[in-house]
Amino acid sequence: MHPWEISFLLDEAEQWAQAGRRARKHDDRLKGLTQINAFFENSTRTLLSFEIAGKRLGADVVNLAAGASSLKKGETLLDTALTLNAMQPDVIVIRHESSGAVALIAEKVDCPVLNAGDGRHEHPTQALLDALTIRRRKGRLEGLTVAICGDILHSRVARSNFHLLSAMGAEVRAVAPPTLMPTDVERLGAQPFTDMEKGLKGADVVMMLRLQLERMDGAYVPSTREYFRTFGLTRERLAAAGDDVLVLHPGPMNRGVEIESAVADDIQRSAISEQVEMGVAVRMACLDVLTRKRRGEWQ
Amino acid sequence: MHPWEISFLLDEAEQWAQAGRRARKHDDRLKGLTQINAFFENSTRTLLSFEIAGKRLGADVVNLAAGASSLKKGETLLDTALTLNAMQPDVIVIRHESSGAVALIAEKVDCPVLNAGDGRHEHPTQALLDALTIRRRKGRLEGLTVAICGDILHSRVARSNFHLLSAMGAEVRAVAPPTLMPTDVERLGAQPFTDMEKGLKGADVVMMLRLQLERMDGAYVPSTREYFRTFGLTRERLAAAGDDVLVLHPGPMNRGVEIESAVADDIQRSAISEQVEMGVAVRMACLDVLTRKRRGEWQ
Amino acid sequence: MHPWEISFLLDEAEQWAQAGRRARKHDDRLKGLTQINAFFENSTRTLLSFEIAGKRLGADVVNLAAGASSLKKGETLLDTALTLNAMQPDVIVIRHESSGAVALIAEKVDCPVLNAGDGRHEHPTQALLDALTIRRRKGRLEGLTVAICGDILHSRVARSNFHLLSAMGAEVRAVAPPTLMPTDVERLGAQPFTDMEKGLKGADVVMMLRLQLERMDGAYVPSTREYFRTFGLTRERLAAAGDDVLVLHPGPMNRGVEIESAVADDIQRSAISEQVEMGVAVRMACLDVLTRKRRGEWQ
Repeated sequence: MHPWEISFLLDEAEQWAQAGRRARKHDDRLKGLTQINAFFENSTRTLLSFEIAGKRLGADVVNLAAGASSLKKGETLLDTALTLNAMQPDVIVIRHESSGAVALIAEKVDCPVLNAGDGRHEHPTQALLDALTIRRRKGRLEGLTVAICGDILHSRVARSNFHLLSAMGAEVRAVAPPTLMPTDVERLGAQPFTDMEKGLKGADVVMMLRLQLERMDGAYVPSTREYFRTFGLTRERLAAAGDDVLVLHPGPMNRGVEIESAVADDIQRSAISEQVEMGVAVRMACLDVLTRKRRGEWQ
Repeated sequence: MHPWEISFLLDEAEQWAQAGRRARKHDDRLKGLTQINAFFENSTRTLLSFEIAGKRLGADVVNLAAGASSLKKGETLLDTALTLNAMQPDVIVIRHESSGAVALIAEKVDCPVLNAGDGRHEHPTQALLDALTIRRRKGRLEGLTVAICGDILHSRVARSNFHLLSAMGAEVRAVAPPTLMPTDVERLGAQPFTDMEKGLKGADVVMMLRLQLERMDGAYVPSTREYFRTFGLTRERLAAAGDDVLVLHPGPMNRGVEIESAVADDIQRSAISEQVEMGVAVRMACLDVLTRKRRGEWQ
Repeated sequence: MHPWEISFLLDEAEQWAQAGRRARKHDDRLKGLTQINAFFENSTRTLLSFEIAGKRLGADVVNLAAGASSLKKGETLLDTALTLNAMQPDVIVIRHESSGAVALIAEKVDCPVLNAGDGRHEHPTQALLDALTIRRRKGRLEGLTVAICGDILHSRVARSNFHLLSAMGAEVRAVAPPTLMPTDVERLGAQPFTDMEKGLKGADVVMMLRLQLERMDGAYVPSTREYFRTFGLTRERLAAAGDDVLVLHPGPMNRGVEIESAVADDIQRSAISEQVEMGVAVRMACLDVLTRKRRGEWQ
């Protein structure tokens, strides 16, 4: 995405964020449109966020859950895509455990496709909601120092944030133990730090990542206690960051593993709940913008 | 709940019960409101009842099913509550296997919370639907003798009924074998009977409970045949009750375990289907009443 | 169903099929009606199709998924039916793994019931969508030669198609290895062929069936490679059929087992995606027609 596209989406989302705080949160601009949430990988919170976003805009929302999928009967992913497409949805939201699966499906269908996370590859609406949260709290993205910390290797959240934040002029740091640092992190737009204290120094924003033990096949897996001792975000470590540092986490949190409870619950500095709130706003903006052309045809 | 609150809710529900028998069952007073059904414990029929109730009132209803929950990824219950809250629902319906979990969540969120059953603790909408069913058939609650029979120890249905029915002036009996009788049953407002014949004598209403074998960890578990022989509701046993006795069961029934088929299917005396019908009406009333203040703000 | 009923439903569905290609696909004629999709057997695509159909007509749609069902707690099917009925739905869509279960439930409830597939017995909306697809491509059903090929023994799709297509005046062939050919196939209205080349000869339509290995309890199970060699639909075999042969498959496809990819993806001859599209149209027609009387009462 280009910076102007990002800014445009953030501005759109900001309006939904403000509407969300009013009692009247509903809008009927997607009334009569069919939104399919095809989640081939489980994700309760992201699915819920997209479902609420679609319903708040008046869409007919249907969910296709992973476990129940026809894929279990040996159907190929492309055949599933063609099947969904034949039901004439107006937008498809896809989450998939394989990198690139979303792009593959998007090529085969006639309607807009929204990526809700694919493998280690991308999670664009997460990066947008993070950016919106930061922009609301800090007033801007440009010139900020953002330290993204933890299990970067397995994190599509990190990859999407590297891309978006560097495009918007932030200075992005990747802070991780060597075993969880991708080799191409600089190419992705981030400056690598294997020492947490140095990585946090002077940071305006610290984004902690979830330790994804379930994805560590074959690799050396740190014990959670060991991990916390070296890379957990504690009040002491956070003191190295800037005074008004903002703490983010995409959730679900492993308290006592990548983040100390006292930091997570610090209502001055933690914006973790606001991230969830902005998630709905960002997804409403994406659903609205992506279906505008389609709606324009019959309005 | 105070008697006047109970009466108010029953009166409200009565209107929905009558509307439910008309062809036009739908009403749009919750249009645009977001209702999250967060069921951390499976319950097909209760979830279905709340979902139908919400949709019939025009709400945007989303379900969060237990199995798929983020809790599986190690998130705490409070973090899940904060996440749900951040999505700005207008009402949350919660079912949880732990007693007190609903109260814990309710403290942390900004919207009304409806308890759809927590552990052995409470199941208030079940007690309301039972009361509504009785009141419709008997014309009143006050002065009736209600025998609640069976696995009282594991039953939140029983506990909620003890509370509600005694508050409304009914004489409540707890009829159970000693191993399934709570020690504090008198404090809960019921008179204990360990002999079924005596417990049923002259009763206006007999409410059978489901034998919850799945909850009997460690305790002596009766065989279902043995249980039926001593505590199953048969026509013979029911003869001890009043002439116009009303038979209730919260479902799902174990036919031949706690209740004989001939009794369950006795259309004169059994109101088991009507209980399900009243369930939707009661939940519509609760959803409507709980969100009135919120709706008032923008109407 | 009588031929005139079938023609009437196909004409109704044709209107929805045309509407589906327009941007405005939504209609509110079922607004406020409650549709319960009770799927006691998993079927992602059929459930999705009925859910989209109902929502596109404005109904309040709720799903009861198999795994979560109260049946797991020992409730009988009839009690589940009575429970659903007590929630006062306006239409129930049922899928069940046992033949006849749908008819059993339909007898016990007060609203129209739509069969979404029961055991090996019937799958009427599948036969309707197949017929609609054929009629759109061939202009008629009468006088066509339709070869239904493969695992006929386990296929309710085949049984429903035998019935519908022969009622509409098509010549229906059952093409299968002897072990997968029902003994009563002629009584069902089809002419048996155990040789695929002979069965396909001159056919206007070839409908391939999914090899349902999961249903072959005890019987000799061919290897998928062996099956493909003798009964898979290849370009070579298809050459025996008519020049303008139409290829159908109810999905999900086992590519390389019952059908070669080159045939499945042949956009001239394969109408497999169109079948899915017609599925939504046919289900909209059925939901609309079945609830007309009920809606008439309050309009």
